[in-house]
Amino acid sequence: MTRYVYDFTEGNKDQKDLLGGKGANLAEMTRLGLPVPPGFTITTEACRAYLRDGHEPAGLTDEVEQHLGDLEHTMGKRLGDPTDPLLVSCRSGAKFSMPGMMETVLNIGLNDESVAGLAEQTGGNERFAYDSYRRLLAMFGATVLGIESSVFAHELDSRKEAKGTHNDLDLTADDFKELVEVFKAKIAEHTGRDFPQDPREQLRMAVRAVFDSWNTERARIYRRREQIPDDLGTAVNIGTMVFGNGGEDSGTGVAFTRDPASGEQGVYGDYLQNAQGEDVVAGIRNTVPLADLEQIDKKSYDELMEIMQTLEAHYKDMCDIEFTVEHGKLWMLQTRVGKRTAQAAFRIAEHMIDEDLITVDEALQRVTGDQLAQLMFPRFDLDAERSLIGKGMNASPGAAVGKAVFDSDTAVEWSERGEKVILVRRETNPDDLRGMVVAQGILTSRGGKTSHAAVVARGMGRTCVCGADSLDVRTAEKQFTTKDGTVVKEGDVISIDGSTGEVFAGEVPVVDSLVVRYFEGDRSVQSDAVVAAVAKIMASADAKARMNVRANADTPEDAARSRRFGARGIGLCRTEHMFLGERRKLIEKLIIAKDDAERDAALAELLPMQRQDFVGILEAMDGLPVTVRLIDPPLHEFLPDLTELSVQVAREDDAGNTDSHHHVLLDAVRRLHEQNPMLGLRGVRLGIVIPGLFTMQARALLEAAAQRLRDGGNPKPEIMIPLVATAAELETVKQDIVRVGGEVATETGIKVDYKVGTMVELPRAALRAGDIAREAEFFSFGTNDLTQMTWGFSRDDVEASFFSTYLDRGIITVSPFESLDTKGVGELVRYAAEKGRETRPNIHLGVCGEHGGDPASIHFFDSVGLNYVSCSPYRVPVARLEAGRATASAGGVSSTA
Amino acid sequence: MTRYVYDFTEGNKDQKDLLGGKGANLAEMTRLGLPVPPGFTITTEACRAYLRDGHEPAGLTDEVEQHLGDLEHTMGKRLGDPTDPLLVSCRSGAKFSMPGMMETVLNIGLNDESVAGLAEQTGGNERFAYDSYRRLLAMFGATVLGIESSVFAHELDSRKEAKGTHNDLDLTADDFKELVEVFKAKIAEHTGRDFPQDPREQLRMAVRAVFDSWNTERARIYRRREQIPDDLGTAVNIGTMVFGNGGEDSGTGVAFTRDPASGEQGVYGDYLQNAQGEDVVAGIRNTVPLADLEQIDKKSYDELMEIMQTLEAHYKDMCDIEFTVEHGKLWMLQTRVGKRTAQAAFRIAEHMIDEDLITVDEALQRVTGDQLAQLMFPRFDLDAERSLIGKGMNASPGAAVGKAVFDSDTAVEWSERGEKVILVRRETNPDDLRGMVVAQGILTSRGGKTSHAAVVARGMGRTCVCGADSLDVRTAEKQFTTKDGTVVKEGDVISIDGSTGEVFAGEVPVVDSLVVRYFEGDRSVQSDAVVAAVAKIMASADAKARMNVRANADTPEDAARSRRFGARGIGLCRTEHMFLGERRKLIEKLIIAKDDAERDAALAELLPMQRQDFVGILEAMDGLPVTVRLIDPPLHEFLPDLTELSVQVAREDDAGNTDSHHHVLLDAVRRLHEQNPMLGLRGVRLGIVIPGLFTMQARALLEAAAQRLRDGGNPKPEIMIPLVATAAELETVKQDIVRVGGEVATETGIKVDYKVGTMVELPRAALRAGDIAREAEFFSFGTNDLTQMTWGFSRDDVEASFFSTYLDRGIITVSPFESLDTKGVGELVRYAAEKGRETRPNIHLGVCGEHGGDPASIHFFDSVGLNYVSCSPYRVPVARLEAGRATASAGGVSSTA
Repeated sequence: MTRYVYDFTEGNKDQKDLLGGKGANLAEMTRLGLPVPPGFTITTEACRAYLRDGHEPAGLTDEVEQHLGDLEHTMGKRLGDPTDPLLVSCRSGAKFSMPGMMETVLNIGLNDESVAGLAEQTGGNERFAYDSYRRLLAMFGATVLGIESSVFAHELDSRKEAKGTHNDLDLTADDFKELVEVFKAKIAEHTGRDFPQDPREQLRMAVRAVFDSWNTERARIYRRREQIPDDLGTAVNIGTMVFGNGGEDSGTGVAFTRDPASGEQGVYGDYLQNAQGEDVVAGIRNTVPLADLEQIDKKSYDELMEIMQTLEAHYKDMCDIEFTVEHGKLWMLQTRVGKRTAQAAFRIAEHMIDEDLITVDEALQRVTGDQLAQLMFPRFDLDAERSLIGKGMNASPGAAVGKAVFDSDTAVEWSERGEKVILVRRETNPDDLRGMVVAQGILTSRGGKTSHAAVVARGMGRTCVCGADSLDVRTAEKQFTTKDGTVVKEGDVISIDGSTGEVFAGEVPVVDSLVVRYFEGDRSVQSDAVVAAVAKIMASADAKARMNVRANADTPEDAARSRRFGARGIGLCRTEHMFLGERRKLIEKLIIAKDDAERDAALAELLPMQRQDFVGILEAMDGLPVTVRLIDPPLHEFLPDLTELSVQVAREDDAGNTDSHHHVLLDAVRRLHEQNPMLGLRGVRLGIVIPGLFTMQARALLEAAAQRLRDGGNPKPEIMIPLVATAAELETVKQDIVRVGGEVATETGIKVDYKVGTMVELPRAALRAGDIAREAEFFSFGTNDLTQMTWGFSRDDVEASFFSTYLDRGIITVSPFESLDTKGVGELVRYAAEKGRETRPNIHLGVCGEHGGDPASIHFFDSVGLNYVSCSPYRVPVARLEAGRATASAGGVSSTA
Repeated sequence: MTRYVYDFTEGNKDQKDLLGGKGANLAEMTRLGLPVPPGFTITTEACRAYLRDGHEPAGLTDEVEQHLGDLEHTMGKRLGDPTDPLLVSCRSGAKFSMPGMMETVLNIGLNDESVAGLAEQTGGNERFAYDSYRRLLAMFGATVLGIESSVFAHELDSRKEAKGTHNDLDLTADDFKELVEVFKAKIAEHTGRDFPQDPREQLRMAVRAVFDSWNTERARIYRRREQIPDDLGTAVNIGTMVFGNGGEDSGTGVAFTRDPASGEQGVYGDYLQNAQGEDVVAGIRNTVPLADLEQIDKKSYDELMEIMQTLEAHYKDMCDIEFTVEHGKLWMLQTRVGKRTAQAAFRIAEHMIDEDLITVDEALQRVTGDQLAQLMFPRFDLDAERSLIGKGMNASPGAAVGKAVFDSDTAVEWSERGEKVILVRRETNPDDLRGMVVAQGILTSRGGKTSHAAVVARGMGRTCVCGADSLDVRTAEKQFTTKDGTVVKEGDVISIDGSTGEVFAGEVPVVDSLVVRYFEGDRSVQSDAVVAAVAKIMASADAKARMNVRANADTPEDAARSRRFGARGIGLCRTEHMFLGERRKLIEKLIIAKDDAERDAALAELLPMQRQDFVGILEAMDGLPVTVRLIDPPLHEFLPDLTELSVQVAREDDAGNTDSHHHVLLDAVRRLHEQNPMLGLRGVRLGIVIPGLFTMQARALLEAAAQRLRDGGNPKPEIMIPLVATAAELETVKQDIVRVGGEVATETGIKVDYKVGTMVELPRAALRAGDIAREAEFFSFGTNDLTQMTWGFSRDDVEASFFSTYLDRGIITVSPFESLDTKGVGELVRYAAEKGRETRPNIHLGVCGEHGGDPASIHFFDSVGLNYVSCSPYRVPVARLEAGRATASAGGVSSTA
């Protein structure tokens, strides 16, 4: 038979699945011989059974009774005893900490009779006893019986008001006696039943309330936000009550073994004399620094210091502690590995290495890429005054301030004259790129975290808030209106916080990131403690990492920056971004070419430009591989929108102008129009259908490499073919590339070493990876497209339309575009990697696309043995850190869906 | 060392891979002791090595020399011997017959000296010897040296003209001698070299020419059309020459062991006295019926009859034979299993069962689904006069005649007054459905074989020619223009042939299909010999088949027809087709509903209509399963086109009308607009996002089933959820369905048995089939979408844009929408079937969508153990036949990509 209850003396800290975090740690402290009030834990399994069946599982009640009897025996007291009652607390405790989300009931065991026994027990302290009883009534009423807690708070306030005070300490035993009667009446009034006088019924009801609290709305929302699975359930901890509110020789406090804000060494905490824990939380009276406890109660203080040392040495991490002193006796109520700020995480990790407390591998588990990312973004000054006017999705972190502009032309014009601008659009498209490049940040009213705006902004490390749907953006009128009717016009200053999604009116002061300055090469910041800690940890990560990190970079500037940020090459150089701006005209020519000659002429014009692009990029990445993806998107992306153009042409027709350039363009747009461009003529298909396009690009790259070799450089070009579904496609274009390679070698007299490989971004490519590897010298997993095809949804379309519903209903817990769906898409990656290696053992395997910079995904890629990840330049340090962490954690796989 | 040459005495008929079809059968006949001129075969492996390396593989020349020596020894003659020369033929022979595609050179061994020996050998027949020599020169010149064959034909004609005759027999030995000189001169003139006098060089060059002929343009095109792999190569057969042109006691003929046109029992063939095989082909003189040979040469005739009996008994199939009589001695030059018409195939199979020559299983391998399909379509009378005005793709077979109409309204109106119409459109969309239903056939100028028009037409068994791009269709002007400028206006009669893609002006007479009349239940046709044969074979197939065949049917009429056609249930009832026409208004209401109440009102109006739809379908399929797919397509498919509507609204705006219903609609269309609707808000996503939609449909179906039960029926409803990617989606909607099921049971007092299952049409669904099977009682593989997602292209977009290039360049050999891509998509089907069965051993597995009616795909589905295939009603008999064939062939898997 399943066992549902464990005594604190039985468990240990590794049993969090079964006993919850709190229960496991109480058991661990008990095991270490620390002074923990005796008690027991009801398992998460009992909770799951209860939630599934709607009642306690068979045997649970008997087991609880058994353990309660043992506890009574140990303590020499009985629950509800009229003369010397045992009191217990009942606290939730899930596997993952959910602060404030779950329920607690203290002082269980008090009733109209035992309250007198408690008074007697505490030397006739009636005030204490009735204070304790009214606390039970209020907590039980709110938590177990579902009465608004304000009902009880209101009565307490009335009482204090009647006495002309704001301080609970001014209330007398009689005041509390009266409050007890009032609270009992309120309970009867709200529930139609009297407060249960039977202490065992109190306990049973409290346990059920804890179980039920797992499924409250706020708990669900919290779990979704923190990606905690819904099916874990919570444990319940029943512990002997100890009291910090029994007099001046008592008190309660919280402590950290290091400063959780700065990471400084040395104890840190607060103490409140003559109080219970809830009083500290309520903030009714001011706490004193923990150090003051040395004066107040040296014995307890010394014992606490020793315990904290024990705990840190044992947990090998900063611990967060709750304790109570009862008449000079120290009791440990809780401990856990403490939460900390990003900067504290790095400093603590650094210090603990120095203190020989942990190894480098362990230190890497004490920090996360997300924390590093936090340290890299500028932030708004939290102390400054701010006027919130809207909120969207935190699409790309950072703090940006500038004048609102509503089109790229204005963005470019204004920024050229030195103005800082925020580009505001309903949504963005490739045409907005020039505006995005010069803007401080991007704000959109439509689209999700993987909309064009969000992806591109993250790619260039530009702050972005997207999908702020309360803002009515009217680009034609160059203004937007907030929910409350405020109008923000072109030129008005706004501030956007890409880490929170907040939009503010006016300028909010910004604080710079020293860590980025360090990565950028500014050595003046090296003395900063946080920078030093980050530098040390990054060096450890790099030394550890099995995978390389490359960058997705399309320009020499991005290439240079990513190299400074530690990239070991370019994993994805998107050539289509080189066809925007002025060059768009040439692509137009290519598309509307009436014959081969016109097409070849357009290609010939593009060739030297592309070559120059590549020369710059190869130079910036000299000595490191540069993977160039040949043109991927459907060509109509370079043409105007069908609908807009149709309206324009219809109006021109109406005006009698039936032969404009727009008519020619519209013909081309119609011809190229696709129902589902994502599933249309793109990638390698373009290369096969349009003679000369891919070879022009290959020639440009290889000529650029030859030029670099002539200039003494060390170029390492790799040509990557997108959207391959079958080996025959790759074979076909590879033949052309090899031919061009031969021609360039003959023409220049210089032999360029290069590789030809492919994206694996279609399910079929993954399934046929064994064949494809016969042609491909490397695979780069295009996990964005692979996710789209495997799930059958496009990120352009679905985030707005149903992802929010899916997340709300728990159908998915995280967008598979944010973090790799390891169970579905990941299976294809794993399979393709295996098959690719079977055919070509030395095949180079990498990943480009958004997932290359996502921590959980990076751990997965490490686990399937990829050689590198590639991500946007600003994510490179994060990816380096996570690559090191992945190796250090010995191939632990993160699961996401 | 690899062996490249086999004597005819060494091989057998099962070695077609190595020896080619002709070589294997020559060896088989030799082995049977039939009179085959001695010779040997150079293997396909030698050809492949030659084509790969550009030269003969090491050892080949020696082996050929060795075998030639043996042959010379056997025949007691030497190649090129001036007195008694051995002459040989050199013929190609690939694994699959490629008639007229490959090369043959006869009379090798003749030169200026040996020609005299040949004359001597034949009793001084100089005419014969020089006739043979000039034939060698012409064949060698054309085939080996690449000179236009018209060069030689022209000289021959000039010669005959000069003699005032059209008959070769009027030419004398001197004429041929002169022609020999002329031909040699022509060869020297065209190639700059003399005709090689060395017989061994002749042979070597001829062998190379045969090898090279594998890769000619026409051979490639032929292979692509016939789906013969490009990498097989051809064998080369070197055989001793025998001559049918040596006098009246000689001759040549072709014969079939049964009539290949009708399938009638009894020999059938042609004979030409004093002639070589090429003369028969050239049709210069009239042949006589084979029976006449009995009078001409009874000995040879009797021997031939005996041989034909031997061959048929041995091959257990109708054989096709080439033979030559040389001075009264019969020689077998070739045999193979003969090609036959569709009707002959069924009759021959039937007869051979009756004759106890073959088993039922073997009979099933003698016919194909494609042949049955041919028998089911009406055809144009081949003897009638016809005026071809265009040609498109043969999208859906049949012969249709009617007046051209250019919109659905006219189609419906005219057909209601009894006119037959052909609906002509540039391309079709769901709006054209009513027009397609009433039309005799559909003609479009755009779109491929899996365009909307093609798919829907095949689904309803309607004749369709699509993508006839030489026609300039102007629907607004209600006319189209052909390439030569002919204008066809509304009301003009046209005829379209869906089996050839041809479009004719005027009415071409049509012949009805008796087989369809039989399937439709017309017993008056049972006495027809073909119908009887088909009926017998179909009964055998049904008895054999392991898989069931269901139909894709959306209406009671289709359900009833498919039942008559032998469907054992409905595998796919598409509910979206029930939302067209009048009901579109209700869907519009649903979409533009401003609140829950409006939405619920729209759903409430739809409920009784859907219920009535289902009652009819359940009635038609009483006692058999009916799988209803809940609504799948994106809702904007029910709204007007964005671009058209935008133009309309812009014009209304310009006219000052800024508040029309079009404006409301445009808002909705914009809101629902998706970049890639195929990857957007559809299927189960709709069901989750729009409360009440799926439950309305489930309720309608279950209420309909309850009504049928009340009326004494036996409904077997199955509810199918489309586009599931993760088990959680299915779980979510299944809960709602089960709830509705309970409600319906309570409200009606009738308990309906039903199943809930899912489409497996996303790669992720296949990958997670194990999880999904926990919720799904059945899987139906939606191989259309699965193909789209696995390959990353949509059939709406890509067939026109790059499939033709891909087919031309051999990157794909058949559209994966036509025949399942077993290596990619098929792997997902196989994996999902396995995983589904692991979780739920009794899970029911089927396939719906186009592949369910495709023969090769059906064999694959049988091999992975599916329970049924479902296809359009008119394909049901084909699928039944192929399901039986698949089982009979013991799980042989067809490979397609």
